[in-house]
Amino acid sequence: MKEKLAGVNSVMEALKGRRKIDKIYMLNSRQNKRTEELVRLAGKKGVYVQYVDKPQLDRLSGLVNHQGVLALVESYEYADLDQVFQLAAKRGEDPFILILDGLEDPQNLGSIIRTAECAGVHGIIVPRHGSAEINQGVARASAGAVEHVLLVQETNLVNTIKNLKQKGLWIAGADMAAESDCFSISFPAPLALVIGSEGKGIRRLVKENCDLLVRIPMWGKLQSLNASVSAALLIYEVLRQRGKSQIL
Amino acid sequence: MKEKLAGVNSVMEALKGRRKIDKIYMLNSRQNKRTEELVRLAGKKGVYVQYVDKPQLDRLSGLVNHQGVLALVESYEYADLDQVFQLAAKRGEDPFILILDGLEDPQNLGSIIRTAECAGVHGIIVPRHGSAEINQGVARASAGAVEHVLLVQETNLVNTIKNLKQKGLWIAGADMAAESDCFSISFPAPLALVIGSEGKGIRRLVKENCDLLVRIPMWGKLQSLNASVSAALLIYEVLRQRGKSQIL
Repeated sequence: MKEKLAGVNSVMEALKGRRKIDKIYMLNSRQNKRTEELVRLAGKKGVYVQYVDKPQLDRLSGLVNHQGVLALVESYEYADLDQVFQLAAKRGEDPFILILDGLEDPQNLGSIIRTAECAGVHGIIVPRHGSAEINQGVARASAGAVEHVLLVQETNLVNTIKNLKQKGLWIAGADMAAESDCFSISFPAPLALVIGSEGKGIRRLVKENCDLLVRIPMWGKLQSLNASVSAALLIYEVLRQRGKSQIL
Repeated sequence: MKEKLAGVNSVMEALKGRRKIDKIYMLNSRQNKRTEELVRLAGKKGVYVQYVDKPQLDRLSGLVNHQGVLALVESYEYADLDQVFQLAAKRGEDPFILILDGLEDPQNLGSIIRTAECAGVHGIIVPRHGSAEINQGVARASAGAVEHVLLVQETNLVNTIKNLKQKGLWIAGADMAAESDCFSISFPAPLALVIGSEGKGIRRLVKENCDLLVRIPMWGKLQSLNASVSAALLIYEVLRQRGKSQIL
């Protein structure tokens, strides 16, 4: 099935990633360094670029803010868990997987995918239902990171967690009410880190299957961080403890 | 001057904070636990709540998504640097100040203010020009945190930094191209942490006045984190090193 992908970053990262691109439409009046780079990359990959005027592009994209670039692409291709483990093995690292339990806000979902990609997380598991879809809004909020990470869709997160445990993974859940704070404990490895939805947190059954629950310490009057900020703090704390910064 | 503040969180935190509130308009058809809590709190503070219907509230707010609540409030009141130092002294802590060098995106600015509030940062310095204003968009993105943090507006950040240095502060700047990564160095105290704008980073003159520059390590294909994520990682790394998690 064909999908639309809008915005310079999204299309640029799609060109660099695995996604098949049919065609790129580009606004004839907006040319700059980034769009020139995009056209050059498209040429290398054999992707046809068609120049159109603004009314045409507005009509094709159906979006207000296409930033002058629109691509027709194949549907997003999810990975499977085996590929995630293969990636970790290939890098010689203990698997580090992110499980997103029902994030509904595409902006937060995209932002977490972006952080996870920058941090080199091996794979991200999202539930098939009750989570924002990987559409162009998410792709864009991820700054194109969706094209580079391994995203796995699972029907039943509890079963997935049991499966991961059998493979030797520890399951840590983010929970505002947890006793342990993330800077005082040692995260075990290999690890899957579960982040819950905005407001509601991790669902009960998923939480009950976590080996440990951690909170982020807070010292202010507000008692909640944004979901994408919480995820970033926990992801980087795991990596800091693994000493990844030393091996670079 | 009167301003409008929309949304349950924003108005709730304004009621808990320092801001003077003239009047609250509430949608008569939308009542839930949060709005009941808000009405109770308004009663305690002696703020008059008027119930209106949707067309009235839409017209009053001029916003689509007011979440059923609108407040008429006094303009946002900035703090001065002295108050920031007094707060640190009162808490018996080394001053930890955030300097935001020209963040233009209200969403990112609000998100950083929220994280800084949760983390107990003593004050946030924003430039008077070239930064997003503390309007209701920022208030909302901050989940109401603007009402609790000390926000200081300064005309010339370079002069401000020189002034802070004279008071004994170290100045650390976030810079993607820095040699030191934030997990390998020890942050000195007292400290001011400078975060640059999305895309452009810290301006040259401001950067030249930093005592140290730090980057956040990255292991993915993308080479940039969202500004609010970067800020959160650095803020919490400073606090982690200060051992704040142990003293709770």
